[in-house]
Amino acid sequence: MPREPRRDEVLDAAARLFARDGYAATSVRALADEAGFTKAGLYYHVRGKEELLAAICAESIEAILQDVERAVVDGAEPAQQLAAIIDAHVRFFHQHPDRLTVLNQEMGRLSAPRRRKIVRLERRYLGLLRSVLERGMKSGALVRLDPTVSAFLLLSLVNGLSDWYDPKGRVGRDALIAHVQRITLRGLAA
Amino acid sequence: MPREPRRDEVLDAAARLFARDGYAATSVRALADEAGFTKAGLYYHVRGKEELLAAICAESIEAILQDVERAVVDGAEPAQQLAAIIDAHVRFFHQHPDRLTVLNQEMGRLSAPRRRKIVRLERRYLGLLRSVLERGMKSGALVRLDPTVSAFLLLSLVNGLSDWYDPKGRVGRDALIAHVQRITLRGLAA
Repeated sequence: MPREPRRDEVLDAAARLFARDGYAATSVRALADEAGFTKAGLYYHVRGKEELLAAICAESIEAILQDVERAVVDGAEPAQQLAAIIDAHVRFFHQHPDRLTVLNQEMGRLSAPRRRKIVRLERRYLGLLRSVLERGMKSGALVRLDPTVSAFLLLSLVNGLSDWYDPKGRVGRDALIAHVQRITLRGLAA
Repeated sequence: MPREPRRDEVLDAAARLFARDGYAATSVRALADEAGFTKAGLYYHVRGKEELLAAICAESIEAILQDVERAVVDGAEPAQQLAAIIDAHVRFFHQHPDRLTVLNQEMGRLSAPRRRKIVRLERRYLGLLRSVLERGMKSGALVRLDPTVSAFLLLSLVNGLSDWYDPKGRVGRDALIAHVQRITLRGLAA
């Protein structure tokens, strides 16, 4: 019996299907059928498929950004802030792997204005990361390297999780966080 | 005036269009028109669009694998072998960015038998990388971490280049190679 979903359930179910079958191949009808939602209940939360994709992308990056901003204003040493950023990003991925997979793979399908919004959020994330790296380089704690390249390489490590990491697999969340932190912090240390 | 292309020109032109517009949105006719090839000249090299995609994916990973295998059999220390693997992969990306972008983004569009061939090649690459890491960990040169996770993280660094690195941009190839090597080798050092 189809039921009325909560907004969060709609986004999770849509992310699962978009990640599994691709955005182009998924219809709102298939989503409602597979998730057991009424179409009215689904349309109560979003007006259509593109709005679903936009919400998945924007809310994912906003959630990570919130944690990252908290990590950056807390006055800790740059290395600790980097560790906190990695922790926040990997935790979000572990909890919502499909949402980040969709953000990485399908954001190009958004209309230009919606894509611009996501790009702005991504730039804010990149800017924060770069500012932490620059501070660490100036203080002498981190090796002097191009901070933009370092920031993109760090993002590649966490964004790449969609390609290989299975949150239900052999390697637990906290072991993964420690592994990424170890490589990054030692790799960037002066 | 359309002309007869060489095989390499066909693959490069197809990779450029697949990377720019997506595999699904590109037709063989559009490829021939835009690249200025005769359709007969194009069909002399490949039977159709999926064969083009399969060739781009397989030949990219085979080319990198060849360099990686050379690096792994030369008897050098594991850290030097890792440096050589990074060098080979970044060099290939720098020369053929569109081919690796297509491999990363579109290999899922291949039919199952063709995809399996690519997956086998990728597993061989991963296995070689893991064997180098394991040797380094055993000898005490590299920190003891899960070698599979380390191998995937290293691949994420180089595969992520498609998302942000512009070979014609401000950061040159050799600076990029040195940057990735620095972070990786220090990050993994015991």
